[in-house]
Amino acid sequence: MKIKVVSNILKANDSIAEENRGLFKENGLFVINLISSPGAGKTSLLEKTIPLLSSPPSKGGKWGGISIGVIEGDIATTRDAERIEKTGARVIQINTNGACHLDSNMIRTSLRDFPLNGLDILFIENVGNLVCPANFNLGEDVKAVILSITEGDDKPKKYPGIFREARVLIINKADLLPYTDCSIDKIKKESLEINPDLNIFEVSCRSGEGLDRWCNWVKAQKKTYSATNLHE
Amino acid sequence: MKIKVVSNILKANDSIAEENRGLFKENGLFVINLISSPGAGKTSLLEKTIPLLSSPPSKGGKWGGISIGVIEGDIATTRDAERIEKTGARVIQINTNGACHLDSNMIRTSLRDFPLNGLDILFIENVGNLVCPANFNLGEDVKAVILSITEGDDKPKKYPGIFREARVLIINKADLLPYTDCSIDKIKKESLEINPDLNIFEVSCRSGEGLDRWCNWVKAQKKTYSATNLHE
Repeated sequence: MKIKVVSNILKANDSIAEENRGLFKENGLFVINLISSPGAGKTSLLEKTIPLLSSPPSKGGKWGGISIGVIEGDIATTRDAERIEKTGARVIQINTNGACHLDSNMIRTSLRDFPLNGLDILFIENVGNLVCPANFNLGEDVKAVILSITEGDDKPKKYPGIFREARVLIINKADLLPYTDCSIDKIKKESLEINPDLNIFEVSCRSGEGLDRWCNWVKAQKKTYSATNLHE
Repeated sequence: MKIKVVSNILKANDSIAEENRGLFKENGLFVINLISSPGAGKTSLLEKTIPLLSSPPSKGGKWGGISIGVIEGDIATTRDAERIEKTGARVIQINTNGACHLDSNMIRTSLRDFPLNGLDILFIENVGNLVCPANFNLGEDVKAVILSITEGDDKPKKYPGIFREARVLIINKADLLPYTDCSIDKIKKESLEINPDLNIFEVSCRSGEGLDRWCNWVKAQKKTYSATNLHE
């Protein structure tokens, strides 16, 4: 009984996700669903990535002035949206009021107040949870999982669902490596055992280390996924 | 409709939780349900706490040789149970096979293979998730939330549910404080705004700092909560 209910909820979610996907495609958007534990660095990654990708060539930007929107998902508060607003990106906050993940209907509803025109890339920052968001498609092109090295190198095998679903793994807080017992090699090895197609990036959102390679990948994917050209 | 289903599931869960609670009381157990994000240090806390509490006075133990059992909850793998087994505690592993939290029926089922006789304290380590486990009573006496300082000081207000439900907040990884921007004062202030009755402990499971105060509290609670005496 419980399983049937869950299966129906997921089916309804997938159907709305397809509608969202259609809308994203119409607008030529590349959409990334960012998933991690609380505090792994989803918002910090966006705070660092957005200025890099959006800076126009006239101001020395290396990635051609990409226009970015962000849908922020949180259980409570608008703190993350306030942080993102400072980057100049278009942003809207969804508060789930207790729910442990975003679903496709929340995204659809938020789009009523969030125009997509003129955007190149949309980041959806999910609720901080390494488990539940993996099961709910939102209409995104790719799911990206962020794991901070302070969480420990045993996490991929213990939370395999999201590592199976994701196209990208971002290993964050590399600057703290000397102060922990974490092995980045073990994270990579065990993640790839679950999903050999994972693209893996080692970064420190604090020091900026590794972000260039990540930005190159995002821009390349944008070109692959969307029919429209970048605003360059 | 969806809300009604959820409410029925929670009601069924509470009813089995009461049965578990009865069984725990019959056995004179004090039961702590440990909840945190993945990698905040639930297993590490147990690895450090169990030897301290269980060491007999004849071997210099300060807490009188308390007998400890652990129910380990994980989505996959038996890694945590293997770590706990080395401490000498009686341990059983529950694998939820994808489910994002333990529920009271999983605990009831595990008790068929997990004798409670002779135990003083039972720790239940929940699935790593700061959201969902807060809603599911297991029959425990208290919920304890662990927050590692590397997760950031904005987490209590962003994930208020578990801070409202918990009796204890353990702030872990204090040894990493110099390398982060985290303010422990902010964590304390904002946690207490949500729940003024929280008992707060600052610890480092790596250095051992702060664990004595935590062990004193656990032993004192054991005396308050259970009718039977400690095996001392």
